[in-house]
Amino acid sequence: MINQDTIVALATPAGAGAIAVIRLSGKDAINFAENRFKSVSGKQLSKQATHTIHLGHIVDGNKTIDEVLVSVFKNPNSYTGEDVVEISCHGSNYIQQEIIQLFLRQGCRMATAGEFTLRAFINGKLDLSQAEAVADLISSDNEASHQIAMQQMRGGFSSEIAKLREELLNFASLIELELDFAEEDVEFADRTQFKDLIERITFVLKRLIDSFAVGNVIKNGIPVAIVGEPNVGKSTLLNALLNEERAIVSDIAGTTRDAIEDEINIGGIGFRFIDTAGIRETKDVVENIGIKKTFEKIAQAQVVVYLFDAEAIFSQKSTIDAITTEIEKIKNKYPQKPLVVIANKVDAISNTGLEELTDKVSDIKLISAKNRKGIEDLKITLSNFVNTGALRNDETIVTNSRHYDALLKAFEEIQKVQHGLETGLSGDLLAIDIRQALYHFGEITGEITNDDLLGNIFANFCIGK
Amino acid sequence: MINQDTIVALATPAGAGAIAVIRLSGKDAINFAENRFKSVSGKQLSKQATHTIHLGHIVDGNKTIDEVLVSVFKNPNSYTGEDVVEISCHGSNYIQQEIIQLFLRQGCRMATAGEFTLRAFINGKLDLSQAEAVADLISSDNEASHQIAMQQMRGGFSSEIAKLREELLNFASLIELELDFAEEDVEFADRTQFKDLIERITFVLKRLIDSFAVGNVIKNGIPVAIVGEPNVGKSTLLNALLNEERAIVSDIAGTTRDAIEDEINIGGIGFRFIDTAGIRETKDVVENIGIKKTFEKIAQAQVVVYLFDAEAIFSQKSTIDAITTEIEKIKNKYPQKPLVVIANKVDAISNTGLEELTDKVSDIKLISAKNRKGIEDLKITLSNFVNTGALRNDETIVTNSRHYDALLKAFEEIQKVQHGLETGLSGDLLAIDIRQALYHFGEITGEITNDDLLGNIFANFCIGK
Repeated sequence: MINQDTIVALATPAGAGAIAVIRLSGKDAINFAENRFKSVSGKQLSKQATHTIHLGHIVDGNKTIDEVLVSVFKNPNSYTGEDVVEISCHGSNYIQQEIIQLFLRQGCRMATAGEFTLRAFINGKLDLSQAEAVADLISSDNEASHQIAMQQMRGGFSSEIAKLREELLNFASLIELELDFAEEDVEFADRTQFKDLIERITFVLKRLIDSFAVGNVIKNGIPVAIVGEPNVGKSTLLNALLNEERAIVSDIAGTTRDAIEDEINIGGIGFRFIDTAGIRETKDVVENIGIKKTFEKIAQAQVVVYLFDAEAIFSQKSTIDAITTEIEKIKNKYPQKPLVVIANKVDAISNTGLEELTDKVSDIKLISAKNRKGIEDLKITLSNFVNTGALRNDETIVTNSRHYDALLKAFEEIQKVQHGLETGLSGDLLAIDIRQALYHFGEITGEITNDDLLGNIFANFCIGK
Repeated sequence: MINQDTIVALATPAGAGAIAVIRLSGKDAINFAENRFKSVSGKQLSKQATHTIHLGHIVDGNKTIDEVLVSVFKNPNSYTGEDVVEISCHGSNYIQQEIIQLFLRQGCRMATAGEFTLRAFINGKLDLSQAEAVADLISSDNEASHQIAMQQMRGGFSSEIAKLREELLNFASLIELELDFAEEDVEFADRTQFKDLIERITFVLKRLIDSFAVGNVIKNGIPVAIVGEPNVGKSTLLNALLNEERAIVSDIAGTTRDAIEDEINIGGIGFRFIDTAGIRETKDVVENIGIKKTFEKIAQAQVVVYLFDAEAIFSQKSTIDAITTEIEKIKNKYPQKPLVVIANKVDAISNTGLEELTDKVSDIKLISAKNRKGIEDLKITLSNFVNTGALRNDETIVTNSRHYDALLKAFEEIQKVQHGLETGLSGDLLAIDIRQALYHFGEITGEITNDDLLGNIFANFCIGK
């Protein structure tokens, strides 16, 4: 299914920077590069050792396009397993385009999305779940998602699946062997051991399937609805939560800061805060539409933060009753949804005032977003909504819905096998269910694959990877 | 003035891509990298040859941050002339930050803008005009600006200046030698040869100074005011002009297309089209404000394109008289400004109609933007407004205003020298003017420099270069 032609693409982000890297892979990669590269030392690229770097110029006839560093990787010791050349040029859009055009004119083809990694998979450099982890790694934007992708890329997930698959395969072979001797009524596969194995597989599959809930949260962040009137300090609170991360980021000039603005990283997990207009009772039709919208947003969230201005109560702009009424309303409508009640601006009120507040409103967090008081405590509260136990214990966590689906299907088949064993199902029928389970295991790591599946997976990659 | 500490920065554009490159330079670069790198082969980085690449993992204690390729460059054979390490990692923002943080914690310092190139200059890898060409090369966005920057980076400009400087320096030495023998009234410096040299220098300086006009156009593009009512086809025309370039660009997925939208590349020169509202006579106050604005925009432009709808004339929505009146108005107000008159939608009118048009409106271009008729001819017309003779002959073109200033000052001093020679000025006074001219030559290539100057130059670089 794969073309053995030579592909080219920009491997670094689009746009101008100090340098850009253009990558070629395929049987003609080194020849094509050699044709358009004049080494300063006068040496020929094709005669150089793998993993060496050469200074020179990319030339188009008499025209010098750029002074570059060319890295040579010889098959099979490259990312794709093919001959690979990386050209590190000055990062102008114009130069990037000129160099890519030059190689297209020579007979290279523009790489499709993920084609370098697809070739790595096809050449056995990575299994399918590792290849998928490459894309996850590139899009990882916090510690947790990075850690999971890294573990998967290094084969943690594959090896867990592969181990189960191998054990199951052994039994499948034994049971199929029994079928050959069907008339003699022998049992090569020890049914007790087999039951044990099925139980172990069930246990592992359950854990992996369950891990998808947390994996999903880690990959996509937790949506948190923040309910509160204007001026209660919503943005000050978000800034306080964001502050620590920002300080780190601003040290590194040139990194994008906007990406973090809509997702706040707490303890390595991304929290996406959804601003709402509050739910203050009113007869105004327009405002009541606002309340309806707030409830819709709460419905989408996994956690609700109810924020109010404690100072406003003691300056009589609001009342504790009004606050508790609103809290009850949320609780009644969404009894299952975790709710964090926060009183802001507590610095401005007396100790007796605070006592009255904690007395009348249960489970309240007292903070001063402006003075960064109570923020650490709030962070811990929010972090606790995510069960990071698996993460801490470095267990395999499933984040990929394709893997999740395959695990669910494998689990279903394994349950059939288990049921079959309990009811004394005949070997030939057992064997069918086992083969089905093996099939789904194989889908994860890529022993079982097809063009459509690969097409779907690699279409989600960026070009150049 | 330079710190010999080890600096680190992201060298590729910010944002997520397939890969990112992080660059370290300084005496501890290799040691720092070795401390945080586990090579797959188990080899130590510091024992590796220069210009070699090593696969392994960046680790922080027990935590694996990424699988990377590390390139080692040993001083003096590196970009900066120091030990340099380049880490090619997966292009996630998170990973980029983690790796940079890791090295900052080890004692690296964030590189300031252009600091790698500044070090290259200080270590004699580049002269100052070459260093400046690096920034020009990165920001070059068309063939002409790229070609000039490339010529300058490869030393074309420096060597022209250096040759003049050397010859002048020889005469300066001879004249200063005469001063030592002042009482003997000897002439070591042949005055006729010296006059010849000064004439040659004058000639070259004049050419270089004159080249700045075209250099400026090449670097910054030509502003073209496009005057025309709504619906005469302005955007269709711009798209037709843009079309060819677009077709090339869209082949290369991942490259930014927005940058081109406001600058159209014709024959390697950027044209910036300034849209105006037209200058149709009216009594409406608001529209008259629009006309005033159109004239302001024309004043800023170097070329004016007047575009009208030929079809509208023959369907009687407009008249040839109205058109010629407007054209006259522009010509009267800006008699010196090049004006291109274009009739669009000529496909829709008869041959006799066209004859009438060309009869009554002089120097008219007939096009059909929609059917891409007459576009090539128009491109040639626009290109001709730029004198690209120097470019075609591969002559040195000055694009940098700092160089331009220094050349002007050198020219002034050389004129003084010339005048001094003609009036028989004494050797000691001649020597002063010659030294001043030499000083300004030295400013260009960086023999003469100071911290403020370097600060100004390198502040315009991006970080990581």
